[in-house]
Amino acid sequence: MERIGFIGLGVMGKPMARHLLAKGYTVVAYNRSRPAVDELVAAGAIGASSPADVARQATVVITMVPDTPDVEAVLVGDNGVLSTLGPGSVVIDMSSISPVATKRLAGLVAEKGSAMLDAPVSGGEIGAINATLSIMVGGDPAALARVRPVLECMGNPERIVHVGPEPGAGQICKICNQVAIGGALAGVSEAFALARKSGVDPARVRDALLGGFAASRVLEVHGERMLKRNYVPGFRSRLYQKDLRLAAEAAGASGVAMPATAVVGQMLNALIASGGAELDYSALATVLFELAGLDGDAPPAA
Amino acid sequence: MERIGFIGLGVMGKPMARHLLAKGYTVVAYNRSRPAVDELVAAGAIGASSPADVARQATVVITMVPDTPDVEAVLVGDNGVLSTLGPGSVVIDMSSISPVATKRLAGLVAEKGSAMLDAPVSGGEIGAINATLSIMVGGDPAALARVRPVLECMGNPERIVHVGPEPGAGQICKICNQVAIGGALAGVSEAFALARKSGVDPARVRDALLGGFAASRVLEVHGERMLKRNYVPGFRSRLYQKDLRLAAEAAGASGVAMPATAVVGQMLNALIASGGAELDYSALATVLFELAGLDGDAPPAA
Amino acid sequence: MERIGFIGLGVMGKPMARHLLAKGYTVVAYNRSRPAVDELVAAGAIGASSPADVARQATVVITMVPDTPDVEAVLVGDNGVLSTLGPGSVVIDMSSISPVATKRLAGLVAEKGSAMLDAPVSGGEIGAINATLSIMVGGDPAALARVRPVLECMGNPERIVHVGPEPGAGQICKICNQVAIGGALAGVSEAFALARKSGVDPARVRDALLGGFAASRVLEVHGERMLKRNYVPGFRSRLYQKDLRLAAEAAGASGVAMPATAVVGQMLNALIASGGAELDYSALATVLFELAGLDGDAPPAA
Amino acid sequence: MERIGFIGLGVMGKPMARHLLAKGYTVVAYNRSRPAVDELVAAGAIGASSPADVARQATVVITMVPDTPDVEAVLVGDNGVLSTLGPGSVVIDMSSISPVATKRLAGLVAEKGSAMLDAPVSGGEIGAINATLSIMVGGDPAALARVRPVLECMGNPERIVHVGPEPGAGQICKICNQVAIGGALAGVSEAFALARKSGVDPARVRDALLGGFAASRVLEVHGERMLKRNYVPGFRSRLYQKDLRLAAEAAGASGVAMPATAVVGQMLNALIASGGAELDYSALATVLFELAGLDGDAPPAA
Repeated sequence: MERIGFIGLGVMGKPMARHLLAKGYTVVAYNRSRPAVDELVAAGAIGASSPADVARQATVVITMVPDTPDVEAVLVGDNGVLSTLGPGSVVIDMSSISPVATKRLAGLVAEKGSAMLDAPVSGGEIGAINATLSIMVGGDPAALARVRPVLECMGNPERIVHVGPEPGAGQICKICNQVAIGGALAGVSEAFALARKSGVDPARVRDALLGGFAASRVLEVHGERMLKRNYVPGFRSRLYQKDLRLAAEAAGASGVAMPATAVVGQMLNALIASGGAELDYSALATVLFELAGLDGDAPPAA
Repeated sequence: MERIGFIGLGVMGKPMARHLLAKGYTVVAYNRSRPAVDELVAAGAIGASSPADVARQATVVITMVPDTPDVEAVLVGDNGVLSTLGPGSVVIDMSSISPVATKRLAGLVAEKGSAMLDAPVSGGEIGAINATLSIMVGGDPAALARVRPVLECMGNPERIVHVGPEPGAGQICKICNQVAIGGALAGVSEAFALARKSGVDPARVRDALLGGFAASRVLEVHGERMLKRNYVPGFRSRLYQKDLRLAAEAAGASGVAMPATAVVGQMLNALIASGGAELDYSALATVLFELAGLDGDAPPAA
Repeated sequence: MERIGFIGLGVMGKPMARHLLAKGYTVVAYNRSRPAVDELVAAGAIGASSPADVARQATVVITMVPDTPDVEAVLVGDNGVLSTLGPGSVVIDMSSISPVATKRLAGLVAEKGSAMLDAPVSGGEIGAINATLSIMVGGDPAALARVRPVLECMGNPERIVHVGPEPGAGQICKICNQVAIGGALAGVSEAFALARKSGVDPARVRDALLGGFAASRVLEVHGERMLKRNYVPGFRSRLYQKDLRLAAEAAGASGVAMPATAVVGQMLNALIASGGAELDYSALATVLFELAGLDGDAPPAA
Repeated sequence: MERIGFIGLGVMGKPMARHLLAKGYTVVAYNRSRPAVDELVAAGAIGASSPADVARQATVVITMVPDTPDVEAVLVGDNGVLSTLGPGSVVIDMSSISPVATKRLAGLVAEKGSAMLDAPVSGGEIGAINATLSIMVGGDPAALARVRPVLECMGNPERIVHVGPEPGAGQICKICNQVAIGGALAGVSEAFALARKSGVDPARVRDALLGGFAASRVLEVHGERMLKRNYVPGFRSRLYQKDLRLAAEAAGASGVAMPATAVVGQMLNALIASGGAELDYSALATVLFELAGLDGDAPPAA
């Protein structure tokens, strides 16, 4: 049985690591701040003192940290995973980071005789807690086959998708997910702003639209949030801002024009400027409401 | 039983009028060009020589014409419906036109002692042929109750939605529908452009996304069209351009900012500039593909 | 000497017509509301009872009215100019209207054996009062040569530009003017928003930028307005909205993508939604300031 | 007399350092690749083996390197400037980099008892060669007063502007410059696209516009390039892309919505995707020309 190293025990990482313990895996855990490690040790994990210390004891190393520089630090920084990683291991980066950086890191892992998979997730805190995450995987299919049982402890088995063999394919897919959501979110927000400003009940509009080509999970779920002004996250705006920044970087790096997404990103900046960083990202609608001269104030998130 | 006047026997109007005949209604039909009238007369309708001639013989007058000036001409132009419309009638405009113009026209109909409903549809040619249209209705609920059986001959009874009592509410709802679709369409197009340019298979991306928050009818239906490069309409780009023009007009008239929709509208202009006016509107993706330096050429529609 | 018909005695038209009187021209004046006509008659003009009445008495007919339907009404409506216009006349439309409509109207004027020039202006009320307008002329160069002395009474002789022989070329040029201004206005507004939000004095930024490639009349004039929060028009936002609507229509009609202009148009909608319709269009900056969470409130115009 | 350390002898840095030598300054030079150092040593400079080696021998250290990570590496990396910088020195970063990173680095320099100025430039290669750069300076005014004679060797004395005392104010100003240019560039490009598609000569439009509110250096200089299809840089698109990336980062970091700039950035991505990375950034117009179905192909830069 694989010995799992787990680096990054935040809001997402902690419940994910617990699922691995619950399924009987040995988990060697590390986190920058110590209390999260202690908590996991109390639940049965082995505590580690550094990423290097994790890699020394594990055959599969999972990283779940906030952003590109964090993954870089954990893998190739001082006392990083690569300083001790044995050959024949698998590194699974489940963070959402730059696909360009992923490619570079995957190359460095390959030089150590190991494989790296990028495996970002969607589904949020609730998906992490319920082990129902969607997992979008890029990299060597054989490596994925080897660690699939591990991933199935954390995500919905039917929604662990091998996007492509190229390193970074998972990250690209995650970005595509956020881009597709962004377009839908803007469309629904602008539609509701127009309805409200025209004296038409957006709830009726939502009902009318749900049966046709405008139907979407966003209209259903986030549209309902907009109607109820319920912006308790869910998925925080500042995290979505990060994802759209990754999208903008990828678009710039590879030469893709994403004008609608770019506009969504700017509206999100406005949401955050108005104090909405910790609100659910569906609060994007409040920006459009305010631009229309409607009462757009989002309530504070709980 | 109501006597139905039907003005506008185009791609949509003709099958709609036929459904009314099939259900046993008397239909008095008019169209600017004569052959369409003759065809309907052969099917059992009474031919009329002008909109005024229609209104003289009908208790319910349906208009199904291309654009705002056409409805204006038919209702208030020379030999228009309002010149002969008796009191106690109902005018149902099923065209997709300006909500501002609708308000004005509804006022003029009211001065005649009759009611006007705006009842634009979605579902396209196929919906018209199969009598499965969605119908978004604005105006007096009593008038709707009266003509609901008539509408049910042409649309899906469960998807005849009373959006609001204000004249134009149906038109606003139709615009909201197109706006919500536009955002989704742009999101999916930009996502696929990024995937392709990054060497990732957009079909895999679509699969991965369909289970999560990015799921939408657009991702499902139009996303598949993009993958198969099947841009045989469906719904023609030039008609969608018209609808986005109505959206822009409504946004300007009522003071709503729709920046994402505005960007979608400009990409659509580019699609039409490249010869795509008669292609399905999902061909919007080809504009993004070309901007990314990918092979974006849409095949000619059949 | 030409006998000048002048239709449309508003904020712009009245001083323009007075300049013609001052240079000794016979002016036959018409306006929808009578007092403006009386005022001009008191200044030496001949009053007319309709556009037809104007055209009957004039060799050159100038129209200066708000929008496309107004020009259409004045020329081809009941008692319109075309009902009495003699052959060998020149119609000069100095309104800012749709280039597509202009083309159509020029054709109708040509059928009467006369010429139509489109000759929209820039320079605003002050330019009209000081006879320093810029005039952008489309149409037959011989007709322009004939009426140039007339135009020189109202505009800066060096800035009466023959844009092209095609009807509508002047209107296109006017739209281009507003589009170029819109881009510059958005650029300066966004730059100032960033500076302010970053704690940097936008006045210093303006100084630094005026010497380089970012230098523009907009940075100079409208940038200063933004710094002083002086939004007394100048050029009113609602008129600029009209011009951007014409731009959007032209873009749609001819198949041109104008994504930056489209975004500017939406920000302008937001300005108007916040009560800024009568403010100078440089108040566009207040929308960006508000989106950045800065104090963006524009003072009421005097 | 100050002893000047100069790090970064690229297209810009080399002529700038030569100007300092020409004015009699001692220059200690370092560049990552050695030949550039040798060249400068031949011209009278002292060669250094690392940034630390530079700082050991200089009282004023100038950095002129491509991007944020490069400045970070040079200042705080291994053998970086900060490892040997004496107290009472001045570091002048003339690169165009992130204002957020600048703030952090200025703090680290202050901890060494020295001052850091951010002093990005505009004016390009030609400005560097002719010592006519504009220099936008952020930071301590006393430090600026001290090094002003140094800066005056490289830039136009009248265009060395102290933007503000906060670290990063110069970088913000540089970004504002690029943002203002971007808006103007998009406006002119879209105007020319509309003119061309409408059959109107954009050269005439440019002439007509240069006298009014649409007048700008961009219309004059870059507008002429667009007319002549002369996209030999000038300022390369890929460098402008970098600057707009910095703008997007700053907007995200500080909470500012820049929708027009965001759209410009995406059009620039498209230009680069079509092979235009080394073309002058005025080639942005070719993207709009292509979107309009016009011949938009930019010629290869010399």
